[in-house]
Amino acid sequence: MDLKLIKTLTVKSSTKILLMVMDGVGGLPNPATGKTELETAKKPNLDELAKAGMLGLTHPIARGITPGSGPAHLALFGYDPIEFPIGRGVLEALGINFPMTCRNIAARANFATMDKSGAILDRRAGRIPTDKNIELTGRLSAAIKEIDGVKIIIKNGKEHRFVVILEGDGLADGVNETDPQKEGLKAHEVSPLRPEAKKTAEVLNKFIKLANEVLKNEPKANTFLLRGIASCPDIPALKDITKMSTACVANYPMYKGLARLVGMDVLDAGDTIKSEFDLLEQNVSKYDFFYMHIKKTDSYGEDGNFDAKVHIIEEVDIEIPRLKKMGFDVICVTGDHCTPAVLKGHGWQPNPFLLVSKNSFPDGMAFTERNCAKGGLGQMFSKEAMPLLLGNAGRMDKYGA
Amino acid sequence: MDLKLIKTLTVKSSTKILLMVMDGVGGLPNPATGKTELETAKKPNLDELAKAGMLGLTHPIARGITPGSGPAHLALFGYDPIEFPIGRGVLEALGINFPMTCRNIAARANFATMDKSGAILDRRAGRIPTDKNIELTGRLSAAIKEIDGVKIIIKNGKEHRFVVILEGDGLADGVNETDPQKEGLKAHEVSPLRPEAKKTAEVLNKFIKLANEVLKNEPKANTFLLRGIASCPDIPALKDITKMSTACVANYPMYKGLARLVGMDVLDAGDTIKSEFDLLEQNVSKYDFFYMHIKKTDSYGEDGNFDAKVHIIEEVDIEIPRLKKMGFDVICVTGDHCTPAVLKGHGWQPNPFLLVSKNSFPDGMAFTERNCAKGGLGQMFSKEAMPLLLGNAGRMDKYGA
Repeated sequence: MDLKLIKTLTVKSSTKILLMVMDGVGGLPNPATGKTELETAKKPNLDELAKAGMLGLTHPIARGITPGSGPAHLALFGYDPIEFPIGRGVLEALGINFPMTCRNIAARANFATMDKSGAILDRRAGRIPTDKNIELTGRLSAAIKEIDGVKIIIKNGKEHRFVVILEGDGLADGVNETDPQKEGLKAHEVSPLRPEAKKTAEVLNKFIKLANEVLKNEPKANTFLLRGIASCPDIPALKDITKMSTACVANYPMYKGLARLVGMDVLDAGDTIKSEFDLLEQNVSKYDFFYMHIKKTDSYGEDGNFDAKVHIIEEVDIEIPRLKKMGFDVICVTGDHCTPAVLKGHGWQPNPFLLVSKNSFPDGMAFTERNCAKGGLGQMFSKEAMPLLLGNAGRMDKYGA
Repeated sequence: MDLKLIKTLTVKSSTKILLMVMDGVGGLPNPATGKTELETAKKPNLDELAKAGMLGLTHPIARGITPGSGPAHLALFGYDPIEFPIGRGVLEALGINFPMTCRNIAARANFATMDKSGAILDRRAGRIPTDKNIELTGRLSAAIKEIDGVKIIIKNGKEHRFVVILEGDGLADGVNETDPQKEGLKAHEVSPLRPEAKKTAEVLNKFIKLANEVLKNEPKANTFLLRGIASCPDIPALKDITKMSTACVANYPMYKGLARLVGMDVLDAGDTIKSEFDLLEQNVSKYDFFYMHIKKTDSYGEDGNFDAKVHIIEEVDIEIPRLKKMGFDVICVTGDHCTPAVLKGHGWQPNPFLLVSKNSFPDGMAFTERNCAKGGLGQMFSKEAMPLLLGNAGRMDKYGA
């Protein structure tokens, strides 16, 4: 069911929805114990919530597909992640807390080493230290502020990575990357792949020339490669589709950025899980819908640190009883994608999904991947979750008569 | 899988299919007992059938979406309910047993009160009694029989509601409603939203002028508002897609109308559940496919009358043993949508779905929502049911070699 149709069905209501995303919470059995992170964690409060609710599994994109956080989140917000692709550059910009608008083009950049002929000798400039990166991006920022009326914004990342953002009129995406992907080859020029992107290509080529001049005496980072050159996708705001006021409670810039991308108000959640629940509590009366993001389940999953991921689940569990007093009509706890510690990275496995509402059949089971596979909600795609939450909250009119 | 493809695969056969729709049968737990209507009813025969068959859940439109009866039925008949929308006017016409064709345009009309300036003071004319409605629609029918060669058909409904149907050549849907939605505003003129609808708009505007003249001295119902002005959707006949002779056994006009819309023969089923089974028995040798509709599970659900809905399920159960002798190869018992008595209206919950055929794995469970959630058929969309019935009946060729 597409967003336009959902928009025609949604109605205003006083009901409240909480979507709590425990990033990467779904896991795989630890070979030593045969139990997953969720099965290992002591989480009496999440299990009590689960027993009163319904369980299911969600596939973020399609069966077998491992998603990045961008599309996995968009899907949970109700958007088709294939229809609304998010360029790598945009995610990088969101990750440094840059407020992207339709006047911006963002690119991920890697410092690189080239020889006198222009051939790329090292696509990552020997992974220069972050301090050096900060120095070089500082020099680039000081030297290049504007090209043809387009503002140039340069922000360092870690090691060899940085972000280049253009801001101005007449910019559009649809240009090739400059990374030749293989050492020994020259960097590509930027070319427009469609007429609208002509100005973007011209400005980027001028930028590369000017920046190479600034960097020319550097032993390692004497050039750079641009990838994922992208504009902000034109995404209809969630509040317009759903007629809910929407807020984000998150610690990390990228997730705040994703929330901003779909038009949510972003609240300042501090650094800890407890501070996120504090913020939720303080603002619960002010919004209809809250997206709450718990980052570290994913971070420790990526590190392969099974026990630390278990501990984060337990840390969240301690705060769960506070939800009771907040008066949510619908509570959903799930992941955006799975990050099994044994994989040390994102996985394709479907997310455990827990939904509590008064209009449902309690499954009576604890919150684990294996129980979710037997739950009353069955298996669905992540993009189907938002209409389900809205339906449970009594926020959708009847379709047809 | 779209209808064209299904049509290429279906083959003639002597097998027989029964699709029994217990309207709104799916429910929610009664807070007093924790049991749903299906869990409460004593229904040994339905449960025996279920134990020999497979269970599942069907989503009529999409997860979280509450459907009207029109789209919910079309989906069960195998049509995509988004691709084939049915206008409100068409459903009203079907509801009064009017045989809509492509030469008709139907609109729902509400008597209303306007002041001298034309501003609408009451969009429902104080909900005038049905007797008054019959008098006024009688006068309108007598006074206005034809406009520009287009026949005008007017039928009373209850209270302030009536139906206006146009019949003639060159009519098309795609005009706005006249209801301003808010009191104090004037009714809209009818305008064509696409060129094909020009004549429809002209005829309706002339009709409004003539009818207002007839009604001008009425104290309350001195005008009316037109809504859901629609033509019959161009739906390919089920018998052509499936190569089955198809018949409808139903008590209520709207469901007979929906069956007629997809080209079924409509049999005269009398007023009771028993008379429906009698009719089925008498005609079982004459058709390949029967759609049987039980209305009152929905009616009592809408009323919030849990016990009466339970009783209807028990009344159906008494007749079930009669099916054994009728020789159906495939029997499906399900709902079009859920009507939980606790909601007093349609719900978004998926329908319990029961399929009995010799080519299936018996689930060995009674017919309840919770068992259906654990059943071997899993969760699917309602529009997937018809190919499943056809497959079970051996009425589909192999796809590909």
